[in-house]
Amino acid sequence: MILCDIGNTTIDILKDGGRTKIKLDDFSFDELIGDIYYINVNSSLKKHLETLPHWINVGEWIDKEKYYPTMGIDRMVGCEAIEHGIVVDAGSAITVDVMKSGVYQGGFIALGLRAAQDAYAKLSNALDTSFNFEVDLAKMAKNTPDALSIGYLAPLVEKIQSLNGPIYLTGGDAKVFARFLPKARVDEDLIFTGMMKLIEKGAQC
Amino acid sequence: MILCDIGNTTIDILKDGGRTKIKLDDFSFDELIGDIYYINVNSSLKKHLETLPHWINVGEWIDKEKYYPTMGIDRMVGCEAIEHGIVVDAGSAITVDVMKSGVYQGGFIALGLRAAQDAYAKLSNALDTSFNFEVDLAKMAKNTPDALSIGYLAPLVEKIQSLNGPIYLTGGDAKVFARFLPKARVDEDLIFTGMMKLIEKGAQC
Repeated sequence: MILCDIGNTTIDILKDGGRTKIKLDDFSFDELIGDIYYINVNSSLKKHLETLPHWINVGEWIDKEKYYPTMGIDRMVGCEAIEHGIVVDAGSAITVDVMKSGVYQGGFIALGLRAAQDAYAKLSNALDTSFNFEVDLAKMAKNTPDALSIGYLAPLVEKIQSLNGPIYLTGGDAKVFARFLPKARVDEDLIFTGMMKLIEKGAQC
Repeated sequence: MILCDIGNTTIDILKDGGRTKIKLDDFSFDELIGDIYYINVNSSLKKHLETLPHWINVGEWIDKEKYYPTMGIDRMVGCEAIEHGIVVDAGSAITVDVMKSGVYQGGFIALGLRAAQDAYAKLSNALDTSFNFEVDLAKMAKNTPDALSIGYLAPLVEKIQSLNGPIYLTGGDAKVFARFLPKARVDEDLIFTGMMKLIEKGAQC
């Protein structure tokens, strides 16, 4: 079984237990043979995917009534992976979603690390500096890199910590956030776990 | 007495109790007559200002040892205005600085409202939406505008509230943040108050 998580610029493939991430520009849909289960947030690919006989859209099996209409399919699938807790998907944006006994409670969207750093840099040359990931978020800063790192990370990390329940960290920057959320479980396969659950449910129906 | 707070794109003038904000492109330094006390964060104007006989740089009277070398003069002057508390200057960036019995404790820098909104918009068309300032920050969001508003505002507002001491809000977006920080005092003249204090100190010496 092959699982694919299709984003706006990349496709993330789970095949024979191994993960591959490929830029969509470098990917051909003929490359994969067999039944392929996918989710897709890329609207420009939607129609083409529907014409491919072996590509099965797992996103259609989600009970969307549980969520809200404009919520990304990948966020819904992340929530489907857990029964209870906080899903933090740290990618280009940081999505934070709360599940309680299988019921979606809502969430929020913060800027991702790169997006925040780029936005600081755009404000002034003085703020065009890398974050310091060794910073102590409990303190106030007395230099510019720490002032930006604390300004971006401390409010977000403390907000996530204030939410009730176990924290599941996924996405490209999961390990960076794990430094500051030591109790969080890093699960880079969370989206695929959610997809597998939906496939199993589908098979039972 | 005329006071001027010179930024990167505008000059903010306090004259005869009235405030005027002028784009630097539309401003001529000959316009103001008499002794003019100023602070300036605009490095391209520094040399020119030093050649003007009636322009007095109040920034030079700050005991900079109390702060850190790359900290903006405007932030230092905001801190000089108070003895104890939190100075939140909500402009293109949000600077947050903590004073305790006249001693600077450090601070942090978050993205300003406009900068954050622009950064979300850059991530995807779906996130190119205005903030909802009526949102309840204590809740989780179930639509995109609320998800962005909560994602940007809730962590920052809660972080500011977690700091000990009275909160002084200044800057162009002070009133927006005041909605979410009801105990904060909005003081749009805080920088000028700090400048006045420095001028009075200077006169005593």
